[in-house]
Amino acid sequence: MDDAGVVLVGDDLAIIQTIDVFPPVVDDPYWFGRIAAANSLSDIYAMGGRPVSAVNFVGYPLEELGPEPLTEMLRGCFDALEEADCAMAGGHSIRDKEVKFGLAVTGVAAPDRFLRNSSARPGDRLVLTKPLGLGCLTTALRQGKAAQNDIEAGQKMMARLNRSAAEAMQRVGVNAATDITGYGLLGHTIEMALGANRSFHIHAASIPILDAARPYLIPEFTCGGSKRNAEFTVQHTRFGDGVTDLQRLLLNDVQTSGGLLISVPEERVAELLDRVRQGGDEQAAEIGLVLPDGPAVVVS
Amino acid sequence: MDDAGVVLVGDDLAIIQTIDVFPPVVDDPYWFGRIAAANSLSDIYAMGGRPVSAVNFVGYPLEELGPEPLTEMLRGCFDALEEADCAMAGGHSIRDKEVKFGLAVTGVAAPDRFLRNSSARPGDRLVLTKPLGLGCLTTALRQGKAAQNDIEAGQKMMARLNRSAAEAMQRVGVNAATDITGYGLLGHTIEMALGANRSFHIHAASIPILDAARPYLIPEFTCGGSKRNAEFTVQHTRFGDGVTDLQRLLLNDVQTSGGLLISVPEERVAELLDRVRQGGDEQAAEIGLVLPDGPAVVVS
Repeated sequence: MDDAGVVLVGDDLAIIQTIDVFPPVVDDPYWFGRIAAANSLSDIYAMGGRPVSAVNFVGYPLEELGPEPLTEMLRGCFDALEEADCAMAGGHSIRDKEVKFGLAVTGVAAPDRFLRNSSARPGDRLVLTKPLGLGCLTTALRQGKAAQNDIEAGQKMMARLNRSAAEAMQRVGVNAATDITGYGLLGHTIEMALGANRSFHIHAASIPILDAARPYLIPEFTCGGSKRNAEFTVQHTRFGDGVTDLQRLLLNDVQTSGGLLISVPEERVAELLDRVRQGGDEQAAEIGLVLPDGPAVVVS
Repeated sequence: MDDAGVVLVGDDLAIIQTIDVFPPVVDDPYWFGRIAAANSLSDIYAMGGRPVSAVNFVGYPLEELGPEPLTEMLRGCFDALEEADCAMAGGHSIRDKEVKFGLAVTGVAAPDRFLRNSSARPGDRLVLTKPLGLGCLTTALRQGKAAQNDIEAGQKMMARLNRSAAEAMQRVGVNAATDITGYGLLGHTIEMALGANRSFHIHAASIPILDAARPYLIPEFTCGGSKRNAEFTVQHTRFGDGVTDLQRLLLNDVQTSGGLLISVPEERVAELLDRVRQGGDEQAAEIGLVLPDGPAVVVS
Protein backbone atom coordinates (compact mmCIF):
# COMPACT_ATOMS: atom_id res chain seq x y z
CA MET A 1 0.00 0.00 0.00
CA ASP A 2 2.94 2.33 -0.50
CA ASP A 3 2.86 5.19 -2.97
CA ALA A 4 5.65 3.93 -5.17
CA GLY A 5 7.42 0.75 -6.16
CA VAL A 6 10.82 -0.34 -4.89
CA VAL A 7 13.24 -2.57 -6.77
CA LEU A 8 16.48 -3.86 -5.31
CA VAL A 9 19.43 -3.36 -7.65
CA GLY A 10 22.33 -5.34 -6.26
CA ASP A 11 23.00 -5.48 -2.52
CA ASP A 12 23.47 -1.84 -1.73
CA LEU A 13 20.89 0.06 -3.73
CA ALA A 14 17.14 0.23 -3.98
CA ILE A 15 15.46 2.09 -6.80
CA ILE A 16 12.12 3.75 -6.10
CA GLN A 17 9.94 4.81 -9.00
CA THR A 18 6.65 6.66 -9.04
CA ILE A 19 4.33 8.35 -11.53
CA ASP A 20 1.61 10.96 -11.12
CA VAL A 21 -0.43 12.78 -13.72
CA PHE A 22 -2.42 15.89 -12.88
CA PRO A 23 -5.03 18.19 -14.29
CA PRO A 24 -4.29 21.85 -13.43
CA VAL A 25 -4.87 22.55 -9.72
CA VAL A 26 -4.20 26.29 -9.94
CA ASP A 27 -4.71 28.79 -12.78
CA ASP A 28 -1.11 29.97 -12.96
CA PRO A 29 0.81 27.56 -15.23
CA TYR A 30 4.17 28.25 -13.57
CA TRP A 31 2.84 27.33 -10.13
CA PHE A 32 0.93 24.37 -11.56
CA GLY A 33 4.16 22.90 -12.97
CA ARG A 34 6.00 23.54 -9.75
CA ILE A 35 3.26 22.02 -7.59
CA ALA A 36 2.91 18.96 -9.86
CA ALA A 37 6.65 18.35 -9.56
CA ALA A 38 6.66 18.87 -5.78
CA ASN A 39 3.79 16.40 -5.48
CA SER A 40 5.55 13.77 -7.58
CA LEU A 41 8.83 14.17 -5.70
CA SER A 42 6.94 13.76 -2.44
CA ASP A 43 6.32 10.05 -3.04
CA ILE A 44 10.07 9.49 -3.13
CA TYR A 45 10.68 11.59 -0.01
CA ALA A 46 7.95 9.75 1.90
CA MET A 47 9.76 6.48 1.24
CA GLY A 48 13.11 7.72 2.46
CA GLY A 49 14.57 8.04 -1.03
CA ARG A 50 16.62 10.67 -2.78
CA PRO A 51 15.10 11.70 -6.12
CA VAL A 52 17.73 11.56 -8.86
CA SER A 53 15.96 11.59 -12.19
CA ALA A 54 12.56 12.64 -13.56
CA VAL A 55 10.82 12.50 -16.93
CA ASN A 56 7.74 14.53 -17.73
CA PHE A 57 4.65 13.87 -19.78
CA VAL A 58 2.53 16.72 -21.09
CA GLY A 59 -0.87 16.54 -22.75
CA TYR A 60 -1.62 19.97 -24.17
CA PRO A 61 -4.02 21.71 -26.59
CA LEU A 62 -1.33 23.69 -28.42
CA GLU A 63 -3.62 25.33 -30.99
CA GLU A 64 -6.01 26.53 -28.32
CA LEU A 65 -3.56 27.81 -25.71
CA GLY A 66 -0.39 28.65 -27.64
CA PRO A 67 3.09 27.73 -26.40
CA GLU A 68 3.53 30.15 -23.49
CA PRO A 69 1.57 28.37 -20.73
CA LEU A 70 3.40 25.16 -21.62
CA THR A 71 6.76 26.92 -21.29
CA GLU A 72 5.69 28.29 -17.91
CA MET A 73 4.54 24.85 -16.69
CA LEU A 74 7.90 23.38 -17.62
CA ARG A 75 9.75 26.30 -16.01
CA GLY A 76 7.89 25.67 -12.74
CA CYS A 77 8.67 21.98 -12.99
CA PHE A 78 12.37 22.69 -13.61
CA ASP A 79 12.54 25.05 -10.62
CA ALA A 80 11.10 22.36 -8.33
CA LEU A 81 13.48 19.72 -9.69
CA GLU A 82 16.45 22.06 -9.29
CA GLU A 83 15.48 22.68 -5.68
CA ALA A 84 15.39 18.89 -5.27
CA ASP A 85 18.79 18.36 -7.02
CA CYS A 86 16.93 16.00 -9.33
CA ALA A 87 17.80 15.83 -13.05
CA MET A 88 15.15 16.21 -15.76
CA ALA A 89 16.10 13.26 -17.93
CA GLY A 90 13.56 13.75 -20.70
CA GLY A 91 9.94 14.13 -21.53
CA HIS A 92 7.16 13.36 -23.93
CA SER A 93 4.48 15.77 -25.15
CA ILE A 94 1.32 15.05 -27.07
CA ARG A 95 -1.46 17.23 -28.40
CA ASP A 96 -4.45 16.67 -26.15
CA LYS A 97 -7.86 18.21 -25.66
CA GLU A 98 -7.26 18.96 -21.99
CA VAL A 99 -4.13 20.02 -20.16
CA LYS A 100 -2.48 17.30 -18.15
CA PHE A 101 0.97 17.19 -16.68
CA GLY A 102 2.71 14.11 -15.40
CA LEU A 103 6.01 13.30 -13.84
CA ALA A 104 7.71 9.93 -13.34
CA VAL A 105 10.43 10.21 -10.71
CA THR A 106 13.19 7.74 -9.95
CA GLY A 107 14.81 7.85 -6.53
CA VAL A 108 17.50 5.84 -4.81
CA ALA A 109 17.99 4.64 -1.25
CA ALA A 110 20.13 2.15 0.60
CA PRO A 111 17.96 -1.00 0.91
CA ASP A 112 17.95 -0.74 4.72
CA ARG A 113 17.03 2.94 4.67
CA PHE A 114 13.84 3.10 2.69
CA LEU A 115 10.69 3.58 4.70
CA ARG A 116 7.36 1.85 4.46
CA ASN A 117 4.01 3.33 5.43
CA SER A 118 3.17 0.09 7.26
CA SER A 119 5.95 -0.16 9.85
CA ALA A 120 4.71 2.10 12.65
CA ARG A 121 5.31 0.70 16.17
CA PRO A 122 3.32 0.94 19.40
CA GLY A 123 4.37 3.99 21.40
CA ASP A 124 5.30 6.00 18.29
CA ARG A 125 4.20 9.62 18.08
CA LEU A 126 2.68 10.97 14.87
CA VAL A 127 4.06 14.14 13.31
CA LEU A 128 2.40 16.02 10.44
CA THR A 129 4.76 18.40 8.66
CA LYS A 130 2.42 20.69 6.66
CA PRO A 131 -0.89 22.31 7.65
CA LEU A 132 -4.20 21.16 6.11
CA GLY A 133 -6.89 23.03 4.20
CA LEU A 134 -5.52 22.98 0.65
CA GLY A 135 -8.51 21.11 -0.77
CA CYS A 136 -11.05 23.73 0.28
CA LEU A 137 -8.75 26.55 -0.82
CA THR A 138 -8.24 25.13 -4.33
CA THR A 139 -11.97 24.42 -4.66
CA ALA A 140 -12.71 28.07 -3.78
CA LEU A 141 -10.08 29.05 -6.36
CA ARG A 142 -11.82 26.97 -9.06
CA GLN A 143 -15.11 28.66 -8.17
CA GLY A 144 -13.48 32.12 -8.47
CA LYS A 145 -14.11 32.81 -4.79
CA ALA A 146 -10.59 32.78 -3.32
CA ALA A 147 -8.68 35.97 -2.55
CA GLN A 148 -5.46 36.44 -4.49
CA ASN A 149 -3.21 36.55 -1.42
CA ASP A 150 -4.78 33.34 -0.14
CA ILE A 151 -4.19 31.67 -3.52
CA GLU A 152 -0.56 32.76 -3.44
CA ALA A 153 -0.04 31.41 0.07
CA GLY A 154 -1.66 28.12 -0.95
CA GLN A 155 0.50 27.84 -4.07
CA LYS A 156 3.63 28.37 -1.99
CA MET A 157 2.59 25.70 0.48
CA MET A 158 1.81 23.16 -2.27
CA ALA A 159 5.07 23.93 -4.08
CA ARG A 160 7.06 23.51 -0.87
CA LEU A 161 9.14 20.34 -1.14
CA ASN A 162 9.05 17.66 1.51
CA ARG A 163 12.82 17.45 1.07
CA SER A 164 13.98 19.03 4.33
CA ALA A 165 11.30 17.19 6.32
CA ALA A 166 12.45 13.92 4.73
CA GLU A 167 16.09 14.69 5.49
CA ALA A 168 15.13 15.44 9.09
CA MET A 169 13.32 12.13 9.51
CA GLN A 170 16.23 10.23 7.95
CA ARG A 171 18.64 11.99 10.32
CA VAL A 172 16.56 11.35 13.42
CA GLY A 173 15.49 7.81 12.52
CA VAL A 174 11.77 7.07 12.29
CA ASN A 175 9.64 3.95 11.86
CA ALA A 176 7.18 4.80 9.07
CA ALA A 177 6.00 7.63 6.88
CA THR A 178 3.59 8.53 4.12
CA ASP A 179 2.72 11.72 2.31
CA ILE A 180 -0.72 13.27 2.60
CA THR A 181 -2.43 13.67 -0.77
CA GLY A 182 -5.78 12.65 -2.26
CA TYR A 183 -7.12 10.56 0.62
CA GLY A 184 -6.68 13.35 3.14
CA LEU A 185 -5.04 13.04 6.54
CA LEU A 186 -7.59 10.53 7.77
CA GLY A 187 -7.49 8.29 4.70
CA HIS A 188 -3.72 8.07 4.76
CA THR A 189 -3.77 7.49 8.53
CA ILE A 190 -6.14 4.55 8.01
CA GLU A 191 -3.73 3.12 5.42
CA MET A 192 -0.86 3.34 7.92
CA ALA A 193 -2.96 1.84 10.74
CA LEU A 194 -4.16 -1.10 8.63
CA GLY A 195 -0.64 -1.65 7.29
CA ALA A 196 0.88 -1.72 10.78
CA ASN A 197 -2.11 -3.57 12.31
CA ARG A 198 -2.11 -1.01 15.14
CA SER A 199 -4.46 1.58 16.54
CA PHE A 200 -3.71 5.19 15.58
CA HIS A 201 -5.04 7.99 17.78
CA ILE A 202 -5.34 11.49 16.34
CA HIS A 203 -5.83 14.59 18.53
CA ALA A 204 -8.05 16.67 16.32
CA ALA A 205 -7.25 19.91 18.14
CA SER A 206 -3.55 19.50 17.35
CA ILE A 207 -3.98 19.42 13.57
CA PRO A 208 -2.24 22.42 11.99
CA ILE A 209 -4.39 24.57 9.69
CA LEU A 210 -3.17 26.70 6.79
CA ASP A 211 -4.13 30.29 7.67
CA ALA A 212 -4.85 31.15 4.04
CA ALA A 213 -7.38 28.31 3.88
CA ARG A 214 -9.39 29.30 6.97
CA PRO A 215 -11.98 31.44 5.11
CA TYR A 216 -12.86 28.46 2.90
CA LEU A 217 -13.22 25.64 5.42
CA ILE A 218 -16.96 25.28 4.89
CA PRO A 219 -19.08 22.60 3.19
CA GLU A 220 -19.59 24.89 0.15
CA PHE A 221 -15.92 24.39 -0.73
CA THR A 222 -15.72 20.67 -0.02
CA CYS A 223 -14.83 19.00 -3.31
CA GLY A 224 -16.12 15.63 -4.52
CA GLY A 225 -12.90 13.89 -3.53
CA SER A 226 -13.15 15.15 0.05
CA LYS A 227 -16.77 14.01 0.24
CA ARG A 228 -15.79 10.54 -0.97
CA ASN A 229 -13.01 10.50 1.61
CA ALA A 230 -15.53 11.27 4.35
CA GLU A 231 -17.80 8.43 3.23
CA PHE A 232 -14.93 5.95 3.22
CA THR A 233 -13.12 7.01 6.39
CA VAL A 234 -16.21 7.03 8.61
CA GLN A 235 -16.30 3.23 8.29
CA HIS A 236 -12.83 2.91 9.81
CA THR A 237 -12.84 5.65 12.42
CA ARG A 238 -14.21 6.20 15.91
CA PHE A 239 -14.87 9.88 16.52
CA GLY A 240 -14.97 11.29 20.08
CA ASP A 241 -17.91 13.52 21.00
CA GLY A 242 -15.75 16.64 21.05
CA VAL A 243 -14.69 16.41 17.40
CA THR A 244 -16.17 19.38 15.54
CA ASP A 245 -17.56 19.52 12.01
CA LEU A 246 -14.64 21.75 11.02
CA GLN A 247 -12.19 19.14 12.28
CA ARG A 248 -13.96 16.37 10.37
CA LEU A 249 -13.83 18.48 7.25
CA LEU A 250 -10.10 19.06 7.71
CA LEU A 251 -9.44 15.36 8.36
CA ASN A 252 -10.98 14.44 5.00
CA ASP A 253 -9.77 17.43 3.00
CA VAL A 254 -8.00 16.34 -0.22
CA GLN A 255 -4.43 17.65 -0.16
CA THR A 256 -2.35 18.37 -3.22
CA SER A 257 1.34 18.04 -2.38
CA GLY A 258 0.58 17.80 1.34
CA GLY A 259 3.08 17.15 4.10
CA LEU A 260 4.55 13.97 5.50
CA LEU A 261 2.86 11.97 8.25
CA ILE A 262 5.70 10.43 10.24
CA SER A 263 5.59 7.73 12.90
CA VAL A 264 8.54 8.36 15.21
CA PRO A 265 9.64 6.74 18.50
CA GLU A 266 8.51 8.88 21.44
CA GLU A 267 12.03 9.64 22.63
CA ARG A 268 12.88 11.23 19.28
CA VAL A 269 9.75 13.24 18.58
CA ALA A 270 11.11 16.47 20.08
CA GLU A 271 14.28 16.29 18.00
CA LEU A 272 12.27 15.48 14.86
CA LEU A 273 9.92 18.43 15.39
CA ASP A 274 12.86 20.76 16.01
CA ARG A 275 14.63 19.69 12.86
CA VAL A 276 11.52 19.73 10.67
CA ARG A 277 10.58 23.24 11.87
CA GLN A 278 14.14 24.49 11.44
CA GLY A 279 14.00 23.18 7.89
CA GLY A 280 11.13 25.59 7.22
CA ASP A 281 7.98 23.57 7.98
CA GLU A 282 7.07 25.91 10.81
CA GLN A 283 3.61 24.49 11.44
CA ALA A 284 4.80 20.89 11.85
CA ALA A 285 2.99 19.41 14.83
CA GLU A 286 2.66 16.28 16.92
CA ILE A 287 -0.89 15.16 16.22
CA GLY A 288 -1.26 11.72 17.78
CA LEU A 289 0.22 8.38 18.75
CA VAL A 290 0.27 4.67 17.98
CA LEU A 291 -1.15 2.15 20.47
CA PRO A 292 -0.55 -1.61 20.60
CA ASP A 293 -4.10 -2.79 19.97
CA GLY A 294 -5.52 -3.96 16.62
CA PRO A 295 -6.08 -1.82 13.57
CA ALA A 296 -8.30 1.19 14.16
CA VAL A 297 -8.24 4.95 13.96
CA VAL A 298 -9.58 6.98 16.84
CA VAL A 299 -10.05 10.75 16.62
CA SER A 300 -10.68 12.69 19.80
CA MET B 1 20.39 13.50 -29.04
CA ASP B 2 19.94 10.23 -27.18
CA ASP B 3 16.53 8.78 -26.50
CA ALA B 4 16.74 8.88 -22.73
CA GLY B 5 18.52 10.71 -19.93
CA VAL B 6 21.38 9.34 -17.90
CA VAL B 7 22.20 10.30 -14.33
CA LEU B 8 25.30 9.10 -12.50
CA VAL B 9 24.50 7.77 -9.02
CA GLY B 10 27.77 7.33 -7.20
CA ASP B 11 30.84 6.00 -8.99
CA ASP B 12 29.61 2.64 -10.15
CA LEU B 13 26.06 3.15 -11.33
CA ALA B 14 24.29 5.16 -13.99
CA ILE B 15 20.52 5.42 -14.01
CA ILE B 16 18.79 5.74 -17.37
CA GLN B 17 15.21 6.97 -17.48
CA THR B 18 12.83 7.32 -20.38
CA ILE B 19 9.16 8.00 -21.01
CA ASP B 20 6.92 7.33 -24.01
CA VAL B 21 3.19 7.76 -24.42
CA PHE B 22 1.29 6.16 -27.28
CA PRO B 23 -2.08 6.17 -28.98
CA PRO B 24 -3.16 2.65 -29.99
CA VAL B 25 -1.08 1.32 -32.91
CA VAL B 26 -3.05 -1.90 -33.32
CA ASP B 27 -6.70 -2.75 -32.64
CA ASP B 28 -6.03 -5.59 -30.21
CA PRO B 29 -5.59 -4.09 -26.74
CA TYR B 30 -3.41 -6.95 -25.48
CA TRP B 31 -0.93 -6.51 -28.31
CA PHE B 32 -1.11 -2.73 -28.01
CA GLY B 33 -0.02 -2.91 -24.36
CA ARG B 34 2.70 -5.37 -25.16
CA ILE B 35 4.03 -3.34 -28.09
CA ALA B 36 3.94 -0.08 -26.09
CA ALA B 37 5.99 -1.72 -23.35
CA ALA B 38 8.46 -3.24 -25.83
CA ASN B 39 8.90 0.17 -27.43
CA SER B 40 9.53 1.89 -24.10
CA LEU B 41 11.99 -0.77 -22.97
CA SER B 42 13.84 -0.38 -26.26
CA ASP B 43 15.20 3.06 -25.29
CA ILE B 44 16.95 1.47 -22.33
CA TYR B 45 18.31 -1.43 -24.38
CA ALA B 46 19.62 0.96 -27.06
CA MET B 47 21.67 2.74 -24.40
CA GLY B 48 23.23 -0.43 -23.03
CA GLY B 49 21.10 -0.45 -19.92
CA ARG B 50 19.19 -3.14 -18.06
CA PRO B 51 15.57 -2.13 -17.41
CA VAL B 52 14.71 -2.66 -13.74
CA SER B 53 11.54 -0.74 -13.02
CA ALA B 54 8.61 0.70 -14.96
CA VAL B 55 5.53 2.74 -14.12
CA ASN B 56 2.58 3.08 -16.45
CA PHE B 57 0.21 5.89 -17.26
CA VAL B 58 -3.18 5.20 -18.83
CA GLY B 59 -5.65 7.70 -20.21
CA TYR B 60 -8.89 5.83 -20.88
CA PRO B 61 -12.59 6.48 -21.64
CA LEU B 62 -13.94 3.99 -19.09
CA GLU B 63 -17.66 4.71 -19.65
CA GLU B 64 -17.31 4.31 -23.39
CA LEU B 65 -15.12 1.20 -23.55
CA GLY B 66 -15.72 -0.62 -20.26
CA PRO B 67 -12.93 -2.16 -18.22
CA GLU B 68 -11.96 -5.15 -20.36
CA PRO B 69 -9.74 -3.53 -23.01
CA LEU B 70 -7.88 -1.73 -20.22
CA THR B 71 -7.26 -5.03 -18.44
CA GLU B 72 -6.00 -6.52 -21.69
CA MET B 73 -3.65 -3.56 -22.33
CA LEU B 74 -2.17 -3.97 -18.87
CA ARG B 75 -1.88 -7.73 -19.32
CA GLY B 76 0.11 -7.19 -22.53
CA CYS B 77 2.29 -4.66 -20.77
CA PHE B 78 2.92 -7.05 -17.87
CA ASP B 79 3.87 -9.87 -20.25
CA ALA B 80 6.45 -7.67 -21.96
CA LEU B 81 7.88 -6.49 -18.64
CA GLU B 82 8.06 -10.05 -17.37
CA GLU B 83 9.96 -11.07 -20.48
CA ALA B 84 12.33 -8.18 -19.73
CA ASP B 85 12.73 -9.10 -16.03
CA CYS B 86 11.59 -5.55 -15.30
CA ALA B 87 9.32 -4.82 -12.33
CA MET B 88 6.07 -2.89 -12.71
CA ALA B 89 6.50 -0.45 -9.84
CA GLY B 90 3.18 1.35 -10.13
CA GLY B 91 0.90 3.29 -12.37
CA HIS B 92 -1.54 6.09 -12.71
CA SER B 93 -4.84 6.04 -14.61
CA ILE B 94 -7.11 8.91 -15.54
CA ARG B 95 -10.39 9.11 -17.36
CA ASP B 96 -9.63 10.53 -20.79
CA LYS B 97 -11.50 11.05 -24.03
CA GLU B 98 -8.99 9.08 -26.07
CA VAL B 99 -6.99 5.99 -25.20
CA LYS B 100 -3.35 6.64 -24.45
CA PHE B 101 -0.83 4.40 -22.80
CA GLY B 102 2.51 5.51 -21.45
CA LEU B 103 5.42 3.88 -19.76
CA ALA B 104 8.32 5.42 -17.89
CA VAL B 105 11.17 2.96 -17.58
CA THR B 106 14.20 3.15 -15.33
CA GLY B 107 17.30 1.20 -16.29
CA VAL B 108 20.73 0.79 -14.81
CA ALA B 109 24.20 0.42 -16.32
CA ALA B 110 27.77 0.66 -15.16
CA PRO B 111 28.86 4.22 -16.05
CA ASP B 112 31.48 2.93 -18.49
CA ARG B 113 29.04 0.55 -20.17
CA PHE B 114 26.21 2.73 -21.34
CA LEU B 115 26.17 3.45 -25.03
CA ARG B 116 25.61 6.72 -26.86
CA ASN B 117 24.16 7.08 -30.34
CA SER B 118 26.96 9.55 -31.19
CA SER B 119 30.10 7.48 -30.67
CA ALA B 120 30.40 5.56 -33.95
CA ARG B 121 33.97 5.29 -35.27
CA PRO B 122 35.39 5.23 -38.81
CA GLY B 123 35.60 1.70 -40.12
CA ASP B 124 32.60 0.52 -38.08
CA ARG B 125 29.99 -1.66 -39.74
CA LEU B 126 26.29 -0.95 -39.28
CA VAL B 127 23.96 -3.73 -38.18
CA LEU B 128 20.16 -3.46 -38.16
CA THR B 129 18.49 -6.10 -35.99
CA LYS B 130 14.82 -6.03 -37.13
CA PRO B 131 13.33 -5.77 -40.63
CA LEU B 132 11.51 -2.61 -41.79
CA GLY B 133 8.00 -2.05 -43.11
CA LEU B 134 5.99 -1.74 -39.89
CA GLY B 135 4.77 1.81 -40.67
CA CYS B 136 3.08 0.83 -43.94
CA LEU B 137 1.63 -2.31 -42.35
CA THR B 138 0.06 -0.45 -39.42
CA THR B 139 -1.28 2.22 -41.77
CA ALA B 140 -2.94 -0.47 -43.86
CA LEU B 141 -4.31 -1.93 -40.63
CA ARG B 142 -5.84 1.44 -39.64
CA GLN B 143 -7.43 1.64 -43.09
CA GLY B 144 -8.90 -1.85 -42.67
CA LYS B 145 -6.85 -3.15 -45.60
CA ALA B 146 -4.36 -5.46 -43.92
CA ALA B 147 -4.79 -9.23 -43.88
CA GLN B 148 -5.18 -10.80 -40.43
CA ASN B 149 -2.10 -13.02 -40.73
CA ASP B 150 -0.01 -10.01 -41.77
CA ILE B 151 -1.33 -8.05 -38.78
CA GLU B 152 -0.41 -10.89 -36.47
CA ALA B 153 3.11 -11.15 -37.87
CA GLY B 154 3.52 -7.38 -37.49
CA GLN B 155 2.28 -7.43 -33.90
CA LYS B 156 4.75 -10.16 -33.03
CA MET B 157 7.62 -8.23 -34.59
CA MET B 158 6.71 -5.01 -32.75
CA ALA B 159 6.26 -6.86 -29.46
CA ARG B 160 9.62 -8.54 -29.85
CA LEU B 161 12.02 -7.13 -27.27
CA ASN B 162 15.41 -5.76 -28.23
CA ARG B 163 16.71 -7.51 -25.13
CA SER B 164 18.68 -10.33 -26.72
CA ALA B 165 20.08 -8.01 -29.40
CA ALA B 166 21.20 -5.61 -26.65
CA GLU B 167 22.78 -8.43 -24.67
CA ALA B 168 24.61 -9.55 -27.81
CA MET B 169 26.02 -6.09 -28.47
CA GLN B 170 27.11 -5.73 -24.86
CA ARG B 171 28.81 -9.09 -25.03
CA VAL B 172 30.62 -8.37 -28.28
CA GLY B 173 31.51 -4.76 -27.53
CA VAL B 174 30.22 -2.08 -29.91
CA ASN B 175 30.77 1.64 -30.35
CA ALA B 176 27.29 3.15 -30.67
CA ALA B 177 23.65 2.21 -30.97
CA THR B 178 20.18 3.62 -31.28
CA ASP B 179 16.73 2.13 -31.71
CA ILE B 180 14.69 2.70 -34.85
CA THR B 181 11.34 4.31 -34.13
CA GLY B 182 9.47 7.37 -35.39
CA TYR B 183 12.18 8.89 -37.58
CA GLY B 184 12.65 5.72 -39.58
CA LEU B 185 15.97 4.07 -40.40
CA LEU B 186 17.23 7.08 -42.34
CA GLY B 187 16.27 9.69 -39.73
CA HIS B 188 17.95 7.78 -36.94
CA THR B 189 21.00 7.15 -39.15
CA ILE B 190 21.29 10.90 -39.74
CA GLU B 191 21.16 11.48 -35.97
CA MET B 192 24.01 9.02 -35.48
CA ALA B 193 26.05 10.51 -38.33
CA LEU B 194 25.66 14.09 -37.09
CA GLY B 195 26.39 13.02 -33.53
CA ALA B 196 29.59 11.21 -34.54
CA ASN B 197 30.53 13.82 -37.15
CA ARG B 198 31.15 10.99 -39.62
CA SER B 199 29.83 9.83 -42.93
CA PHE B 200 27.44 6.86 -42.81
CA HIS B 201 26.97 4.74 -45.93
CA ILE B 202 23.86 2.59 -46.25
CA HIS B 203 23.54 -0.23 -48.81
CA ALA B 204 19.88 0.00 -49.67
CA ALA B 205 19.73 -3.51 -51.11
CA SER B 206 20.86 -4.98 -47.76
CA ILE B 207 17.98 -3.57 -45.75
CA PRO B 208 15.89 -6.41 -44.32
CA ILE B 209 12.17 -6.25 -45.08
CA LEU B 210 9.35 -7.73 -43.00
CA ASP B 211 7.62 -10.26 -45.25
CA ALA B 212 4.22 -9.49 -43.78
CA ALA B 213 4.66 -5.82 -44.74
CA ARG B 214 5.55 -6.41 -48.41
CA PRO B 215 1.97 -6.15 -49.77
CA TYR B 216 1.64 -2.67 -48.21
CA LEU B 217 4.91 -1.01 -49.25
CA ILE B 218 3.22 1.47 -51.57
CA PRO B 219 2.59 5.23 -51.36
CA GLU B 220 -1.09 4.61 -50.46
CA PHE B 221 0.03 3.24 -47.09
CA THR B 222 2.68 5.85 -46.35
CA CYS B 223 1.55 7.64 -43.19
CA GLY B 224 2.01 11.35 -42.44
CA GLY B 225 4.99 10.68 -40.21
CA SER B 226 6.81 8.75 -42.95
CA LYS B 227 6.11 11.58 -45.41
CA ARG B 228 7.56 14.14 -42.97
CA ASN B 229 10.57 11.88 -42.50
CA ALA B 230 11.14 11.85 -46.28
CA GLU B 231 10.95 15.66 -46.45
CA PHE B 232 13.49 16.01 -43.64
CA THR B 233 15.94 13.27 -44.56
CA VAL B 234 16.30 14.29 -48.22
CA GLN B 235 18.15 17.41 -47.03
CA HIS B 236 20.82 15.33 -45.31
CA THR B 237 21.20 12.40 -47.70
CA ARG B 238 22.92 11.70 -51.04
CA PHE B 239 21.05 8.99 -52.92
CA GLY B 240 22.83 6.93 -55.59
CA ASP B 241 21.06 6.49 -58.93
CA GLY B 242 20.24 2.87 -58.27
CA VAL B 243 18.15 3.52 -55.16
CA THR B 244 14.56 2.55 -55.91
CA ASP B 245 11.34 4.23 -54.79
CA LEU B 246 10.57 1.18 -52.67
CA GLN B 247 13.91 1.49 -50.91
CA ARG B 248 13.33 5.22 -50.24
CA LEU B 249 9.93 4.40 -48.83
CA LEU B 250 11.45 1.77 -46.51
CA LEU B 251 14.23 4.12 -45.40
CA ASN B 252 11.68 6.67 -44.21
CA ASP B 253 9.05 4.25 -42.93
CA VAL B 254 8.02 5.09 -39.34
CA GLN B 255 8.78 2.10 -37.11
CA THR B 256 6.98 1.30 -33.87
CA SER B 257 9.26 -0.69 -31.62
CA GLY B 258 11.81 -1.17 -34.40
CA GLY B 259 15.19 -2.85 -34.07
CA LEU B 260 18.56 -1.58 -32.95
CA LEU B 261 20.98 0.11 -35.34
CA ILE B 262 24.42 -0.81 -34.06
CA SER B 263 27.82 0.59 -35.02
CA VAL B 264 30.34 -2.19 -34.44
CA PRO B 265 34.08 -2.48 -35.21
CA GLU B 266 34.58 -4.39 -38.47
CA GLU B 267 36.45 -7.27 -36.81
CA ARG B 268 33.47 -7.97 -34.56
CA VAL B 269 30.59 -7.67 -37.01
CA ALA B 270 30.44 -11.39 -37.82
CA GLU B 271 30.30 -12.35 -34.15
CA LEU B 272 27.65 -9.70 -33.48
CA LEU B 273 25.47 -10.90 -36.35
CA ASP B 274 25.81 -14.50 -35.23
CA ARG B 275 24.81 -13.72 -31.69
CA VAL B 276 21.94 -11.42 -32.64
CA ARG B 277 20.50 -14.00 -35.04
CA GLN B 278 20.91 -16.80 -32.52
CA GLY B 279 19.00 -14.64 -30.05
CA GLY B 280 16.01 -14.77 -32.42
CA ASP B 281 16.42 -11.72 -34.66
CA GLU B 282 16.82 -13.89 -37.71
CA GLN B 283 16.68 -11.07 -40.24
CA ALA B 284 19.45 -9.02 -38.62
CA ALA B 285 21.73 -7.73 -41.38
CA GLU B 286 24.84 -5.71 -42.05
CA ILE B 287 23.52 -2.69 -43.91
CA GLY B 288 26.42 -0.23 -44.16
CA LEU B 289 29.58 1.28 -42.76
CA VAL B 290 31.06 4.41 -41.21
CA LEU B 291 33.70 6.42 -43.10
CA PRO B 292 36.11 9.01 -41.69
CA ASP B 293 34.88 12.07 -43.58
CA GLY B 294 32.52 14.73 -42.22
CA PRO B 295 28.87 14.23 -41.35
CA ALA B 296 26.74 12.92 -44.20
CA VAL B 297 24.56 10.00 -45.08
CA VAL B 298 25.01 8.30 -48.42
CA VAL B 299 22.58 5.66 -49.66
CA SER B 300 23.57 3.55 -52.63
